[in-house]
Amino acid sequence: MRLHVVNPNTTATMTAKIAAAARAIARGETVIDARQPAMGPVSIEGFYDEAFAVPGMLGCIREADRDGADAHIIACFDDTGLDAARAVAKAPVIGIGEAGFHIASLVAARFAVVTTLGVSIVPIEHNLRKYGLAERCARVRAAEVPVLALEERNAEALDKISAEIKAAIRDDRAEAVVLGCAGMADLAAELARIHGLPVVDGVAAAVTLAEGLIRLGLSTSRLGPYAAPRAKIYSGPFAPFQP
Amino acid sequence: MRLHVVNPNTTATMTAKIAAAARAIARGETVIDARQPAMGPVSIEGFYDEAFAVPGMLGCIREADRDGADAHIIACFDDTGLDAARAVAKAPVIGIGEAGFHIASLVAARFAVVTTLGVSIVPIEHNLRKYGLAERCARVRAAEVPVLALEERNAEALDKISAEIKAAIRDDRAEAVVLGCAGMADLAAELARIHGLPVVDGVAAAVTLAEGLIRLGLSTSRLGPYAAPRAKIYSGPFAPFQP
Amino acid sequence: MRLHVVNPNTTATMTAKIAAAARAIARGETVIDARQPAMGPVSIEGFYDEAFAVPGMLGCIREADRDGADAHIIACFDDTGLDAARAVAKAPVIGIGEAGFHIASLVAARFAVVTTLGVSIVPIEHNLRKYGLAERCARVRAAEVPVLALEERNAEALDKISAEIKAAIRDDRAEAVVLGCAGMADLAAELARIHGLPVVDGVAAAVTLAEGLIRLGLSTSRLGPYAAPRAKIYSGPFAPFQP
Amino acid sequence: MRLHVVNPNTTATMTAKIAAAARAIARGETVIDARQPAMGPVSIEGFYDEAFAVPGMLGCIREADRDGADAHIIACFDDTGLDAARAVAKAPVIGIGEAGFHIASLVAARFAVVTTLGVSIVPIEHNLRKYGLAERCARVRAAEVPVLALEERNAEALDKISAEIKAAIRDDRAEAVVLGCAGMADLAAELARIHGLPVVDGVAAAVTLAEGLIRLGLSTSRLGPYAAPRAKIYSGPFAPFQP
Amino acid sequence: MRLHVVNPNTTATMTAKIAAAARAIARGETVIDARQPAMGPVSIEGFYDEAFAVPGMLGCIREADRDGADAHIIACFDDTGLDAARAVAKAPVIGIGEAGFHIASLVAARFAVVTTLGVSIVPIEHNLRKYGLAERCARVRAAEVPVLALEERNAEALDKISAEIKAAIRDDRAEAVVLGCAGMADLAAELARIHGLPVVDGVAAAVTLAEGLIRLGLSTSRLGPYAAPRAKIYSGPFAPFQP
Amino acid sequence: MRLHVVNPNTTATMTAKIAAAARAIARGETVIDARQPAMGPVSIEGFYDEAFAVPGMLGCIREADRDGADAHIIACFDDTGLDAARAVAKAPVIGIGEAGFHIASLVAARFAVVTTLGVSIVPIEHNLRKYGLAERCARVRAAEVPVLALEERNAEALDKISAEIKAAIRDDRAEAVVLGCAGMADLAAELARIHGLPVVDGVAAAVTLAEGLIRLGLSTSRLGPYAAPRAKIYSGPFAPFQP
Repeated sequence: MRLHVVNPNTTATMTAKIAAAARAIARGETVIDARQPAMGPVSIEGFYDEAFAVPGMLGCIREADRDGADAHIIACFDDTGLDAARAVAKAPVIGIGEAGFHIASLVAARFAVVTTLGVSIVPIEHNLRKYGLAERCARVRAAEVPVLALEERNAEALDKISAEIKAAIRDDRAEAVVLGCAGMADLAAELARIHGLPVVDGVAAAVTLAEGLIRLGLSTSRLGPYAAPRAKIYSGPFAPFQP
Repeated sequence: MRLHVVNPNTTATMTAKIAAAARAIARGETVIDARQPAMGPVSIEGFYDEAFAVPGMLGCIREADRDGADAHIIACFDDTGLDAARAVAKAPVIGIGEAGFHIASLVAARFAVVTTLGVSIVPIEHNLRKYGLAERCARVRAAEVPVLALEERNAEALDKISAEIKAAIRDDRAEAVVLGCAGMADLAAELARIHGLPVVDGVAAAVTLAEGLIRLGLSTSRLGPYAAPRAKIYSGPFAPFQP
Repeated sequence: MRLHVVNPNTTATMTAKIAAAARAIARGETVIDARQPAMGPVSIEGFYDEAFAVPGMLGCIREADRDGADAHIIACFDDTGLDAARAVAKAPVIGIGEAGFHIASLVAARFAVVTTLGVSIVPIEHNLRKYGLAERCARVRAAEVPVLALEERNAEALDKISAEIKAAIRDDRAEAVVLGCAGMADLAAELARIHGLPVVDGVAAAVTLAEGLIRLGLSTSRLGPYAAPRAKIYSGPFAPFQP
Repeated sequence: MRLHVVNPNTTATMTAKIAAAARAIARGETVIDARQPAMGPVSIEGFYDEAFAVPGMLGCIREADRDGADAHIIACFDDTGLDAARAVAKAPVIGIGEAGFHIASLVAARFAVVTTLGVSIVPIEHNLRKYGLAERCARVRAAEVPVLALEERNAEALDKISAEIKAAIRDDRAEAVVLGCAGMADLAAELARIHGLPVVDGVAAAVTLAEGLIRLGLSTSRLGPYAAPRAKIYSGPFAPFQP
Repeated sequence: MRLHVVNPNTTATMTAKIAAAARAIARGETVIDARQPAMGPVSIEGFYDEAFAVPGMLGCIREADRDGADAHIIACFDDTGLDAARAVAKAPVIGIGEAGFHIASLVAARFAVVTTLGVSIVPIEHNLRKYGLAERCARVRAAEVPVLALEERNAEALDKISAEIKAAIRDDRAEAVVLGCAGMADLAAELARIHGLPVVDGVAAAVTLAEGLIRLGLSTSRLGPYAAPRAKIYSGPFAPFQP
Repeated sequence: MRLHVVNPNTTATMTAKIAAAARAIARGETVIDARQPAMGPVSIEGFYDEAFAVPGMLGCIREADRDGADAHIIACFDDTGLDAARAVAKAPVIGIGEAGFHIASLVAARFAVVTTLGVSIVPIEHNLRKYGLAERCARVRAAEVPVLALEERNAEALDKISAEIKAAIRDDRAEAVVLGCAGMADLAAELARIHGLPVVDGVAAAVTLAEGLIRLGLSTSRLGPYAAPRAKIYSGPFAPFQP
């Protein structure tokens, strides 16, 4: 089976890191097809960046869909453009944020999220409320580590994230932690060992859910908001995205 | 005062109609500066269209902000790109969806929304939940009238919308109705007269709220998710949108 | 247009202060008609005071309505008697509490309220839940300053309120603050400057919303709980209030 | 023990009916002290009537409290003035609305309310939300029978209420019904027999809860919104109510 | 009237203590029939213990029901097996957890729970959400005192519980406290005196509610989830429990 | 990997059917170890049956856990005993109800559940609320088909379930359907074809989620309610279940 993992920002090294994380968890028979858009921001930190990441990301989704992807993963913890992607892709689409929340819900009654910057707390809270899982989340915390600072292992970032996990256990009654950035994928195992609780990386979580959906033969329903977009004219650089 | 009203789709006749509706309600001293993006879809019906309308719309916001707009109104009932616009604009930003919900809440304990197509029901429900006003909304109904069919007055569209209002009063205990599309702005008065209840047009509602915010000297808080975007590189057609 | 602002307590100096705050924000063409009931308590602090403020306040509403008021504002942050006033007034009615919450929602994802005494926290929380905006409110805080201590500027009151705002930013992730008493109207600008976030005064907020409703030609729906009261006998001092 | 039951409207025949219902359920040792205010409306139908019933009702509460009442029951289904009464009474206070909801919650997972007029639906819904029990209530229905039409048994009123109960079972999945007016107290047994489900009369429910609170030695907490009102001047007919 | 109080664990001394607490509050004419199952755990601390306490407890319920119990009380704060008991008992059934929550709701706008071990916090929170009363509960706290440590008065346990009540008042704005274990029944009066707020013991609360339901002639509705179980074969030690 | 699937009722033919459904979806390398308890009811329909199914089911969980199961699936749609199983199993545990809800959330904004008997609607609603996913579920419907009637394909059962799906699409705006009984596993594909929407079978969904958790190396957190049960004495047939 063919799994398309799109990094919605334009930073190739981050795409490589995400692809590696995906391959590490994927089944032998799963081919990971990692892509990134040519247009958009180098990292996604807050609502403004999200807005410009989406069109390019949707381009990747459409292309990979035509290339025969069996499922798509959007590898940004804000689940950037997830609803639009669902409307246009034939194959099912999963965001790493929602993947993390669903998987954490299976191993804990109450989880916390540790994300990069404070500016992302509200977007993540919006998603939790939209998904219905807000009550399962004790708190969304920010380690105040910029996304690109996670590109390579660095002790300071790890310490900051670790401090937030400690606080989440002590103050929020968190039983599990979801790491709130695709760039934290390589830290999950270590943090789980240090803190003695399940630490969920959204990328890995999404890979297993996507493999599951493919196996189940399920794809996005066309009956509601994810009906195929109506044919209409798109102007400017978006002309090729015409539905 | 200078009020920027952006129609996030590329249909100029619709921009004109929205501008007329805005001017009809605006104070004498208010200048309505109506804009539309050069890039994006001709109408916004569902999540996919929204995604491609946002970048161009944000361009209008930034330009109008530099041109001295005292407030911005996003004239699409899905409040397309509202959060991103708030992060980047110096002046306050209001979506016509939220404007309609807030104003309806002042004249009714319980309101209904009548929008264009069924594909927009869930996006509007997501917004209601995000704004916290979901409990005030009895139901979001769709008249199954495409956005562009509203460009000129037509009896069939009016009848379909009217039938949904009737059903909302009878079945949903709606005390007021919010019209769920900028293109319905010219129908509010007639529908209010026919059905004997407050009918709120989001464009007009947003104009009065924007004039109010300006007068109050209030603009978007920078303390949370609407902090100014961090400087970073944006590639492709989005280069000029670099924060 | 004629805007009736009723101070539901019997303290004339507070009425004057509220009227001044209203006039400072109102449009040139708006006449502020400030009233206060002859019967009732000198200040409203908690449920018991509210109960006795309402009948006199409703008398003011009815008289001003007959005198041609285009809208009414109830200038007590508990929105004392708001529902009853809506049922009896021809013109629309706005409470300064709800006005503050709605306006704050337009400039922040998450706001805090700073009110006078702890005894008012639960009444305000009840309102937030009733309006549907509880999720937008991070926390209702009390500065433990009695209402009448706010009659004239005093440094101690300002300090206490300021300390609560500081705590709201630090501990509650508040992005904006709503001042929870009509008597704080004159402090908003200063507190906004000190703390660098939007500070909303309910009186000013209500004036702009009321002007907006008038302009929109909207008044309270008669279809639900605000239908005109049925004719019936009222005994005692309430005889003249017979519907 | 001495149980004060206040009918917040001025209709003496209704007070007598309520007193009879209370005595029918009360223990042998319980003295029912039924009162009604001298001032206020003849019946309570909606927010406006509520506002004018409260001051007189609070007078009854205070007098009965001084006369040694061990508990108070407010015998109007809207729980008119309940919060204010709690703040001022030494003895515990129970509303028949909340009593009905709590008791119904003990015999059914999901109940419906059948009240008199449509104008009372929203006030009851507000209370359900305030008490936290909204999720337990399938729906609030109105039989469109005015309060005073219930003063004497009449077949038409019974039929209308019965029709709503039938609909609640069939359409709302109601497992129990709470009768939404003190004037329906005498119909509960008959309606339960007809429809084969628990039918809760708020007056009777409140008597048993009040007897329970007395026995438990519990009264209203003074730590929060029900702290004793601060001493202050009340003008007009309310002077004697000064806290 | 005959009131069956079942202690769902197998510790006879605890049953005796619970019976004493029930008798202390019950009316003169009420006979307290206290039972405990022969099979199951010696105490209930968390979900696993609950699972094994239920079958034996249901046996007690069925036997007492046949012996003519007029109502049943399940004397474990987790309301262990309450739903199943309702389905099978002719007489009404009350859990001491729900009893505590309902009674506390009548004397405070906001209460806290102080239970034994942290492992019970989530089960209690689940119940609060199921009952609809989660919003009334400020917080569920654990004193970290094992259930059986409460068998006899001990200063250390009292101190730990007392410290949590103090914290609940100071940090959670609790106005009343519900003691979260049947074994704490004898501490309520003392803790109320120390902290000056209503302290609710679930056993006593349940006795008064049960006496009330009996008096009201109300029992569990058969229309929904509490319909009599369908006849079917039960294997193993459960054969006698066959419905 | 070794996947333990426990049918919590004692009907061996149903266990065989569930095992077949699990094997049909499981990976080649996954061994399905299907078990059923020796004690308990032949089918689970409502709260009473659940109570007696749990102890035997937990026995299966403990044995399979000792036998080296990598994950457990509880194959009853009520997720019977799920919380207790999590506390005692070393390997992660998934209920087919929650599995169905989580998977449906990935392919639809809004799903409906079609279960067997009306008596199961409230237990399922309780779970949805507990999991936080209640808002995603449009409605829980019952086809009024007893569990054991599903043992072999029968046209009548299929028709009844099909009729409910049709109603869910038409009346509830359902975009996907979750089949609310392990015994419906073999109908999913056919019903999806007939109605043109995703139909989720909980058994298959749970198999893919369990395989995912195993791959992710995640198991139940021990920090909260799922901490290992404290050692204590269990009497009667439960002695061997002593923690």
